[in-house]
Amino acid sequence: MPDKPSVIRETDNEARRQARSLLRGARFAAIGVIDPETRFPSVSRVLLGTDTDGAAVILVSGLSAHTKALTADGRTSLLAGEPGKGDPLAYPRLSVQCTAEPVERDSETHLRLRTRFLARHPKSALYIDFPDFRFFRLVPRSASLNGGFGRAYLLSEDDFIIGNPSGNLFKNEQKTLLDLGERFPNLASRIAMELHKAPSGKWAFCGFDSQGIDMIYKDLLVRHEFSAPIQTQEQLFLELPNSAYAVP
Amino acid sequence: MPDKPSVIRETDNEARRQARSLLRGARFAAIGVIDPETRFPSVSRVLLGTDTDGAAVILVSGLSAHTKALTADGRTSLLAGEPGKGDPLAYPRLSVQCTAEPVERDSETHLRLRTRFLARHPKSALYIDFPDFRFFRLVPRSASLNGGFGRAYLLSEDDFIIGNPSGNLFKNEQKTLLDLGERFPNLASRIAMELHKAPSGKWAFCGFDSQGIDMIYKDLLVRHEFSAPIQTQEQLFLELPNSAYAVP
Repeated sequence: MPDKPSVIRETDNEARRQARSLLRGARFAAIGVIDPETRFPSVSRVLLGTDTDGAAVILVSGLSAHTKALTADGRTSLLAGEPGKGDPLAYPRLSVQCTAEPVERDSETHLRLRTRFLARHPKSALYIDFPDFRFFRLVPRSASLNGGFGRAYLLSEDDFIIGNPSGNLFKNEQKTLLDLGERFPNLASRIAMELHKAPSGKWAFCGFDSQGIDMIYKDLLVRHEFSAPIQTQEQLFLELPNSAYAVP
Repeated sequence: MPDKPSVIRETDNEARRQARSLLRGARFAAIGVIDPETRFPSVSRVLLGTDTDGAAVILVSGLSAHTKALTADGRTSLLAGEPGKGDPLAYPRLSVQCTAEPVERDSETHLRLRTRFLARHPKSALYIDFPDFRFFRLVPRSASLNGGFGRAYLLSEDDFIIGNPSGNLFKNEQKTLLDLGERFPNLASRIAMELHKAPSGKWAFCGFDSQGIDMIYKDLLVRHEFSAPIQTQEQLFLELPNSAYAVP
């Protein structure tokens, strides 16, 4: 009974965590833009990345219809959270309204997003450096979470934006993850498979922010949220679950 | 390389068939509407039905955000075609722009859509008659088909609208399907499983139009397109494949 008028619940931390996890844990999403000529909405599918401050990230060709639309009008919407078997409307999903910010090629932001996007979507290496490709940061402004039957919540910008720690937590993010993977070769797989019931496979860390860490295996992605936001790399290590087996 | 600038191919009958099958074979879709207050697009998930003329159909609560939006501005978009395992952008998908037509409760159209929607989504019996629920017909105006790597096509209204046969092909549609199911108890399963490689199960016919017939099993749906549009019930029987085993 998905569309049944349901009382909007008071947004609590569990709803915020679920909304963040749906957005940052999505490897792809439906994106809605407004066609600048007809003013019709237009929905298509995009791969999704994330920035360290909690913005969603897309990589698009300058020739594509949604790039033209976003350049004309930065108001956009993402639907994140894919259904599995059974009733598609029984699965949690997030509709989020965002403002699109174009990212200049070869800017510092571009380089950061490129590194993170490549780690999340290794196959994008095939086209990420094509001259007409660019990133947009999609900054969440408001959202509506449907957490399953009768569980509807409204969320605001503050519920998504993380705010970057002032230190250098993200300096050499990929090296930090590489080190982590070398020191504890099975850690990503154990977090994904044991804690998040993900399919068996050789999982690898692909990125983190101060609120969680992401793991990929083939075309799957699992996000593990921390118990509290981290500020330092030390805290990152401490936040990884079951630190007992994380010690060599 | 989903978003790579690809030459738009000339639309041929195979593309038209794929586009129609994606839209009419979808049991749910992402819908984009324009929020009347903020003018942001908003994307959410809806169950999808079809009308006999090729329009898509949704059943929504009058209290929901997308109903309010569609009432204020009937321009809308659907994304149909769900990805499976592997690269989500390797799977065919259709972005279609539609004009939403509200359907009056208890009108003839409402009754027809109610019957078809119930057959396609049996669980909707739980809320289909709630007083605030109504149907919208979403009439396709234009579409963009991404049929897989480098296979992009543009489609027009004419590629989707079927035009109802003048006869009484759809009179007692459900009785026709019931008769069919009784005379040939395994026919739906054989079409779904043998011709369309659908999962094993007890498939049942749920609806047809002059261009194809739909079968459901649990939350799955398979559409079988006819070789040519039908005008009569006789032609429906003749169009069902392998008429050899369709004879009792």
